[in-house]
Amino acid sequence: MQTFQLTREFTEQFTQLIEQRDLEALRPLLDELHAADIAEIFDELNLDEAVYIASLLDNSKKVDVLAELEPDVQVRFFKGYTAEAIALEFVQHMDSDDAADVLTLLDRSVAAEIISYLPNKDEQQYLSKLIEYPENSAGGLMTGELITVKIGWNVRRCIEEIRNQAENVERVLTVYVVDKHDKLVGWVSLKKLILSKDDVLVEDIYDSTVFSAEVHDSGEDIAQTMKKYDLIALPIVDSRHRLVGRVTIDDVVDFMQEEAEKDYQLLSGISENVEASDKVWVLSRARLPWLVIGLMGGITSSLVIGGFEEEIQRNVHLAFFMPLIMAMGGNAGVQSSSIVVQGLANLSIDGQNILPRILKEFSVAMINGLICSALVIAYGLLIGLPHDITLVVSISLVAAILIASMVGALIPLLLERFEIDPALATGPFITTSNDLLGLFIYFLIGNMLL
Amino acid sequence: MQTFQLTREFTEQFTQLIEQRDLEALRPLLDELHAADIAEIFDELNLDEAVYIASLLDNSKKVDVLAELEPDVQVRFFKGYTAEAIALEFVQHMDSDDAADVLTLLDRSVAAEIISYLPNKDEQQYLSKLIEYPENSAGGLMTGELITVKIGWNVRRCIEEIRNQAENVERVLTVYVVDKHDKLVGWVSLKKLILSKDDVLVEDIYDSTVFSAEVHDSGEDIAQTMKKYDLIALPIVDSRHRLVGRVTIDDVVDFMQEEAEKDYQLLSGISENVEASDKVWVLSRARLPWLVIGLMGGITSSLVIGGFEEEIQRNVHLAFFMPLIMAMGGNAGVQSSSIVVQGLANLSIDGQNILPRILKEFSVAMINGLICSALVIAYGLLIGLPHDITLVVSISLVAAILIASMVGALIPLLLERFEIDPALATGPFITTSNDLLGLFIYFLIGNMLL
Repeated sequence: MQTFQLTREFTEQFTQLIEQRDLEALRPLLDELHAADIAEIFDELNLDEAVYIASLLDNSKKVDVLAELEPDVQVRFFKGYTAEAIALEFVQHMDSDDAADVLTLLDRSVAAEIISYLPNKDEQQYLSKLIEYPENSAGGLMTGELITVKIGWNVRRCIEEIRNQAENVERVLTVYVVDKHDKLVGWVSLKKLILSKDDVLVEDIYDSTVFSAEVHDSGEDIAQTMKKYDLIALPIVDSRHRLVGRVTIDDVVDFMQEEAEKDYQLLSGISENVEASDKVWVLSRARLPWLVIGLMGGITSSLVIGGFEEEIQRNVHLAFFMPLIMAMGGNAGVQSSSIVVQGLANLSIDGQNILPRILKEFSVAMINGLICSALVIAYGLLIGLPHDITLVVSISLVAAILIASMVGALIPLLLERFEIDPALATGPFITTSNDLLGLFIYFLIGNMLL
Repeated sequence: MQTFQLTREFTEQFTQLIEQRDLEALRPLLDELHAADIAEIFDELNLDEAVYIASLLDNSKKVDVLAELEPDVQVRFFKGYTAEAIALEFVQHMDSDDAADVLTLLDRSVAAEIISYLPNKDEQQYLSKLIEYPENSAGGLMTGELITVKIGWNVRRCIEEIRNQAENVERVLTVYVVDKHDKLVGWVSLKKLILSKDDVLVEDIYDSTVFSAEVHDSGEDIAQTMKKYDLIALPIVDSRHRLVGRVTIDDVVDFMQEEAEKDYQLLSGISENVEASDKVWVLSRARLPWLVIGLMGGITSSLVIGGFEEEIQRNVHLAFFMPLIMAMGGNAGVQSSSIVVQGLANLSIDGQNILPRILKEFSVAMINGLICSALVIAYGLLIGLPHDITLVVSISLVAAILIASMVGALIPLLLERFEIDPALATGPFITTSNDLLGLFIYFLIGNMLL
């Protein structure tokens, strides 16, 4: 694949061309580069350089570049423009979902000012509404650019209207059919319109089975529906079923990847959205919180162990198996919470019906706990561990796995019910607590039996 | 959103209708349901029931249902048919990528037999080639159904050809333009064809900037390119740049989600692709391997600790901080390997240039190690720990974090270089080794300083 790869040499040459204001070299280069590539280059430029390059791009490419920038770079870049210029040079030409994404990064008052400079009143209204929807909702993901035809029209009228509307719509994908109250009633493919005679009516060729979502539906719902039914665009309706926008698959792909990366980072104990290519101090800062929580957990465990100092001195074997119990409890807890988190994310389970899920978790944990425990007993007999130690370790092991698994499954379900991101359950706080819980059970049982 | 939700009541009613062979109820029900929903129901049916329901569907819906089934259900379902029936009733009507996916699940000889029954020689050849590509490659993801026009044609000829070709192509999306040697030279949108006059030539309206990939490019490359450039279809060419297929975004979405789930499950210690809704024994089996490896790690750590029994008895404080050192080494290792794994997956880093990456990891780990170590020293002074213990713990902590981080970053890079899935580095074996390494360092330093 011959896609663009940004190298340090390229950046150096490029900034040099900017310094020399070398239009003859820059213009063809910018023509050739895709907006997404120019956005990558923007990351490396300072504000003056970026504004200069933007001034060389035509409107449509300029807004494509802007839409591809990382949020922090977008905000930084806007500092080079007045509110009026932002409205007229950028927002006016952007797809409404991209425009809304950018505007929500700014202060509300700044966003309102920018919107007030837009020449078109309808656009002002639509955008003002769009930026109110939560980012993770159909309303927050949708764009207003789409093509609609009325059910009573004939094919000729449709093609004419598409000709008019299509200027603003980058990719047509699907033509939506609405009734006279603008309610969504179906869709018709461009293919079908092309293949039909001019005087055929839309109502005779349209397809009335159309998936749609409501503006308040969640991003996860949208993603799962589009994935399950292989949709490349999903129309969005308001509470009265009037067509207000569409969500396209490219935005859903971005959304899905961001969600997956967020969950993955939580599970691996990283608190910010970082990449391997970020700077050292950014990486440090993102990783420190988990380490500090782990440290507090470790210090707490030292206090727990200290509380059982006498038992350990009486029976030093007890110390040998602390790591085993802690690790096993920790592992079992992470396993069960991550299965539940993933199930909630892909909607294969819901936050209701908690009891049967916990009972299932109990069964799984009991089976695995007993198998592991049997292995410990076999090992103990094999190398001739003192029987009482073997007994304490094997009982604590079952108990630690059982409790950690059930806590691991319960917490994401509870978080979901209180509308908190269940993936937090795989984060440092819960896993560290699980480690400690295992240790505590171990010493408790040791204290009782030894 | 009004999407179908499979309930137990529905399944019971449905199987009852099958038992009664109640065509009057079943036919309209099947008409109404989407193929993806029928596929969900198939999961719950036995072979006879499934074959009966399939016999009620028309060819196009039947193959859509088949394509949506889980791989194991597909294989089970095919047991109800002869090779000839599979070829004529299913494979013949399927998109070639779906057909290839199903055929690769079967024995090579069975697949070859099925292909030999296809009536069309070209299709036989194309499919035979398609099933040879690795699943995770452009060739393995692509389908042969696409619309091409020649660069010398005019718009009228194009529309005629689209009329002919479009029957086999579910979604047109993009019309590809090839030269007389079938080499890909560009594309033209349906929108543009509609908006152009009949006698305009393709060469005057087509767009020659077209992204493409080669059949042997990896699935990750395809996914990243389509995501970066917001593509809904990517044409695939052979080594002589002849157009041989296209990859559509719906397949890439599935691919991305599967990859993300695989990585997530490895990180959480789950060895098979399971869902929260799977049966208890399936969940147990998927989770047992990590627990057993953890158990072996725990037993090994008990031996390590046992080797330092005298030190512990001489200075029982040493036992208190074992969990702290182990957990911190483990956490730091998981953090650094998961960042590298994610970087490799989204191509923000590559498997080359290992040294600078390790040096960066060294810097991050050094900063975080020193901060954590400072916190331990402050804690030790605050509660009046013996100074030598504080010293041992704080030095071991820096060492454990440093070593675990560098091992954590190094292993996925090495795996990638040897073309093994780098995500394995976040699996149980490495993380357990990291725990042990920390423990060993701790006692070594303790032995030297106490």
